[in-house]
Amino acid sequence: MNAAQPKPDRPAPGDLFLSEIREQPDALLRLLEHELEFQTVSRALAERAPTAVRLVGHGTSDAAATFGTYAFGLLPGWTALRDTISLTVYYGATFDLSSSVVIALSQSGRTPDVVDYVQRTRRRGALTVALTNEPDSELAAAAEATIPLSAGPERSVAASKTYLNQLAALALLAGGAAGRGREFADALRAVAELLSVALGPLEQAVSAPALAFAYVGRMYVIGRGLEFATAREVALKLTETCRVAAEPLTATDLAHGPVAALDSLFPVWTIASHDESLPAVIEGVARVRDAGATIVSSGTAAGEIEGAAYVLPVPDPPYPILSPLLSVVPGQLFAAALARAKGLDPDHPERLTKVTLAR
Amino acid sequence: MNAAQPKPDRPAPGDLFLSEIREQPDALLRLLEHELEFQTVSRALAERAPTAVRLVGHGTSDAAATFGTYAFGLLPGWTALRDTISLTVYYGATFDLSSSVVIALSQSGRTPDVVDYVQRTRRRGALTVALTNEPDSELAAAAEATIPLSAGPERSVAASKTYLNQLAALALLAGGAAGRGREFADALRAVAELLSVALGPLEQAVSAPALAFAYVGRMYVIGRGLEFATAREVALKLTETCRVAAEPLTATDLAHGPVAALDSLFPVWTIASHDESLPAVIEGVARVRDAGATIVSSGTAAGEIEGAAYVLPVPDPPYPILSPLLSVVPGQLFAAALARAKGLDPDHPERLTKVTLAR
Repeated sequence: MNAAQPKPDRPAPGDLFLSEIREQPDALLRLLEHELEFQTVSRALAERAPTAVRLVGHGTSDAAATFGTYAFGLLPGWTALRDTISLTVYYGATFDLSSSVVIALSQSGRTPDVVDYVQRTRRRGALTVALTNEPDSELAAAAEATIPLSAGPERSVAASKTYLNQLAALALLAGGAAGRGREFADALRAVAELLSVALGPLEQAVSAPALAFAYVGRMYVIGRGLEFATAREVALKLTETCRVAAEPLTATDLAHGPVAALDSLFPVWTIASHDESLPAVIEGVARVRDAGATIVSSGTAAGEIEGAAYVLPVPDPPYPILSPLLSVVPGQLFAAALARAKGLDPDHPERLTKVTLAR
Repeated sequence: MNAAQPKPDRPAPGDLFLSEIREQPDALLRLLEHELEFQTVSRALAERAPTAVRLVGHGTSDAAATFGTYAFGLLPGWTALRDTISLTVYYGATFDLSSSVVIALSQSGRTPDVVDYVQRTRRRGALTVALTNEPDSELAAAAEATIPLSAGPERSVAASKTYLNQLAALALLAGGAAGRGREFADALRAVAELLSVALGPLEQAVSAPALAFAYVGRMYVIGRGLEFATAREVALKLTETCRVAAEPLTATDLAHGPVAALDSLFPVWTIASHDESLPAVIEGVARVRDAGATIVSSGTAAGEIEGAAYVLPVPDPPYPILSPLLSVVPGQLFAAALARAKGLDPDHPERLTKVTLAR
């Protein structure tokens, strides 16, 4: 290479993560181009009339699975669970799977125990569906049906747009199974629009708490109901990109022990959205306030949290069930800003790789 | 009171918690006096032939519920889940419950959303069972069948013997549903015996790590499979009694993000027991070792964890599925010792009460 030439562009630490967070409205619209595939799979799910929808995934995919338990519970009214992979993969439990649907989530499609789980449950009669960003992966080959997440290449190790598209895909599948697929596709288009307007101001708003929290070592992230998925994903972002020991808790579980550990140097990130679980969150935050902990509030109802030092509201989506697609974004942006404030690289956290082959 | 008289005995901080940990073999034997009641309820469960066993509880009771998903999965081969209470209680989801069993866990029998959940699911056709230490409680009144935990009064806010009896009760119910109730009652008697021998030496063994960890602010507690219940309960004990931000993780989830946060001042407590999930735990611990974190190993296979700074093995029970009843004890005793080393009172942690009325 000629030394007189400019160096090829090399992203600065955190550029990938931040650009992928910003890209989420476009990624969401790409997913919606597959509306017909969602219709086909939703129809197959409804024909199975499952007694159990078994969701499996690790890390970010497992946070998305939490959302799935609500989406299937509230839309078609099906029992959905984050299944315990080890029962099937390690202990050889022999459940009756004839009326089960399996939905396996993996960005890379290569998570070993998830692939193994799908192979075993498919052999034993479950209807298996893969949601992956890599439609040529092992996971896609193992499952009976595959829906591409269509998020585009995700190069940052810390996931963002694949999470948002996992939530959207689960909402479309659950909505479709309830005969409301079209309605939810339209609602998700509206979410993409809301998100593209909200991103810029939120990116500005997170810089103040990111500076204030540069020396924080531990946090809780609390949500309830639908927003517990968001709490799990935000806690994971803070842990992997900022090396904060951030634990997700329901607002109720906080009162059953962990509230004892709080003090003024142990901040709490709250996800508060407009739905039936909001009073429980408000009650939980009152306990946090009594402990003197610094409070950040985010979500569609962020403004209803009293005593928050930082308030990061997001707009209300057409249906409250879609709030988690918006309320995760302040947490993603905050993680990006805090990592930068701490001199860490969220694109390449220590000891992590984009494809995790841990069993 | 005459000033010349000795003061009435008042327990020193932590005395209640420690005496209740020590009392666990006796508490377990008391539960086994109810073998006939377990038989009756197990028979009713088997008649229902449930497509879903829905376990609900908060805090320690929720950790026990994790064990329940394995006990029902491995013994009668039923799908069991820690149900999301908010779907039923806040969002009014209308699942078909005609082939569901509900098992509600609450030491006090007064946890409001658990009581509410049982009332609603019973009205809608589920077979509801309460496992509580207070057979005259609201929860017992709400459920169709109640099994007393028979742990005796638990006066320490931090639970110990009620947890052990919850595990035993779930093992008896699941064993009974598989036609193996008698066998498991005998095995639990053997566990009580093993425990009474192990308690003294373990109490000695935890004092070294308790002194070394007096300034630790955050920890991970890892387990996999059956022992994930233990990881959850040990993490909760450390959080509520020692004000350590201790998060439970499966050995696999550790690799999907949290391993990035580790360093030499962020210790990891490992539960390793002799069963099919052990290789995954050993692989997970190798990642912890690479990060330079201090490792404590406990469980029946504690000795197989390389590079552990502290090794706290427990004896093997007659069936590996009962390992969690033994492997939780080093964690309980460590929490008691660490609380004392930090000058905290595990009998009365700040901001906690024995009966939690949070919704």
